[in-house]
Amino acid sequence: MTAQGFLLLLELVGVFAFALDGALSAMRAAHLDLFGVVTLGIVTAVGGGILRDVLLGELPPATFRTWYYLATATAGALTAFWGHRLVSRMSRPILVFDTIGLSLFAVSGAQLAVHAGVGAGQAILLGGLTAVGGGTLRDVLVRQVPTILTGGLYAVPALAGAAVAVTGPLLGLEAGVAAFAGGAVCAGLRVGGVLGGWRAPSAPRSAREGLDG
Amino acid sequence: MTAQGFLLLLELVGVFAFALDGALSAMRAAHLDLFGVVTLGIVTAVGGGILRDVLLGELPPATFRTWYYLATATAGALTAFWGHRLVSRMSRPILVFDTIGLSLFAVSGAQLAVHAGVGAGQAILLGGLTAVGGGTLRDVLVRQVPTILTGGLYAVPALAGAAVAVTGPLLGLEAGVAAFAGGAVCAGLRVGGVLGGWRAPSAPRSAREGLDG
Amino acid sequence: MTAQGFLLLLELVGVFAFALDGALSAMRAAHLDLFGVVTLGIVTAVGGGILRDVLLGELPPATFRTWYYLATATAGALTAFWGHRLVSRMSRPILVFDTIGLSLFAVSGAQLAVHAGVGAGQAILLGGLTAVGGGTLRDVLVRQVPTILTGGLYAVPALAGAAVAVTGPLLGLEAGVAAFAGGAVCAGLRVGGVLGGWRAPSAPRSAREGLDG
Repeated sequence: MTAQGFLLLLELVGVFAFALDGALSAMRAAHLDLFGVVTLGIVTAVGGGILRDVLLGELPPATFRTWYYLATATAGALTAFWGHRLVSRMSRPILVFDTIGLSLFAVSGAQLAVHAGVGAGQAILLGGLTAVGGGTLRDVLVRQVPTILTGGLYAVPALAGAAVAVTGPLLGLEAGVAAFAGGAVCAGLRVGGVLGGWRAPSAPRSAREGLDG
Repeated sequence: MTAQGFLLLLELVGVFAFALDGALSAMRAAHLDLFGVVTLGIVTAVGGGILRDVLLGELPPATFRTWYYLATATAGALTAFWGHRLVSRMSRPILVFDTIGLSLFAVSGAQLAVHAGVGAGQAILLGGLTAVGGGTLRDVLVRQVPTILTGGLYAVPALAGAAVAVTGPLLGLEAGVAAFAGGAVCAGLRVGGVLGGWRAPSAPRSAREGLDG
Repeated sequence: MTAQGFLLLLELVGVFAFALDGALSAMRAAHLDLFGVVTLGIVTAVGGGILRDVLLGELPPATFRTWYYLATATAGALTAFWGHRLVSRMSRPILVFDTIGLSLFAVSGAQLAVHAGVGAGQAILLGGLTAVGGGTLRDVLVRQVPTILTGGLYAVPALAGAAVAVTGPLLGLEAGVAAFAGGAVCAGLRVGGVLGGWRAPSAPRSAREGLDG
């Protein structure tokens, strides 16, 4: 398998994991029919990458240039729809699939942005957007406040993983090693954050009073 | 009238119908002022086409290249705002206008995507997005769960109509005939689905329990 | 200071004011942690400009081409998070910062659109979108009905200011003078509208009944 092929495989694993995650979250959040579940699974899986490609001006987005992504996303969402009994026997299935997608997309999104020629800071931000964008679109569609705003550490692991993947090579690390390290950092922070209940400081309660509309 | 002019006329009929539909739905869903109603009518009418043009990289979108689309959308929304008494005497006015817009946009969106050079599967998807995108944006802005997720058969007729318009010519059908057939399939499935109460299978209730957050 | 530098400075003042405004509104609307507040401040500050650049096809958007915008937006949001006690002693701080951002963005967005070569009507619309787009994205993310739909005169001052900035030079006015006049018109209409309670006509109550779904 070539390096190119290996990267595509990793991307598709991320797409499948996010489609599963998105479809499971959607079934929990709202009473949807088959098409609603599949639509939200696909949006979760490919939304972040589409936002990244639009902002980079790489149009049509990668999602629309081959059939791999959409087919994989549909398969993931259908697996969630028909296999949810099996999946729900896993311990914390949404966390598992979400962490896989988040880590793979943060790193691959950041690397694609670097190749497109934007600066390091912007590449890190676009890596984070690739990772959290699809889930945020899904949350907006089912009228939940997005996880990035309330869910403890969600965007931070993605940004940290993207930062390792982008800055590693600048510091002399091999790109593959930096990508692997970035993915591990993202997954570690995400899982540690959820299991350990790590929280960012909240806006003081007083901030909600005394301001005009 | 040239073929070009006939296609533009059809597009503008779709824009007008969707602006009426969007403004009427918006007035039902939320207490809005004149500018809110007109804004939502315009968003419903041109949102799907803008999303399609962004994804195809055809920028600025067609909506911004002439004044026809925005003027027609504004006229449709104002007709709904001032003429709603007249309109509400029709039987099911929202269904009528929505079906007209859905059918015209599914077919024209798919054909534009084919001309832009994407594959057949992606053209069908972009046809569907052209048809349902504007209404979905409107639903998000007035905080309703989008019709594509809950409203029975809504995206399916659009995708079916787009599929007929895209695959017909590949099977030797004349483009105009395929477009007409695609529009008829979309309208038939949509109206039949609403009047007949056709529903897609729902996510099993058990899927809403037993999953972690 | 060059004219170019002066324009950039004005843009950054607008970004800072909108980031403050966005972070303050977000703290009022939902219980968010530090990262949620900063995210919403940044979205409010740069969202409108990103939407404009995407629609103009100027990609990557200006926001991603330098680090100035993102750094300024982050500083504004952090100021709101840590300094909200101080800020809330001001009379109507959200109105003040919002009006500054609205006026600067309506004018600069319209001028950028003119330079990108679109027609006058579209440039006015894109100026309005630059001004209200970021706040609308923020409202959608925290599940509020956007101010553009319900908040009395909000989009109208932005469109009026953009119209003055665009049409002034066509009528022989110097560009800088037209821009200043446009900003003053926008700020005057916005502040006058809020303090004077000006309202656009509402959709008649009867419009909410007698329509099918």
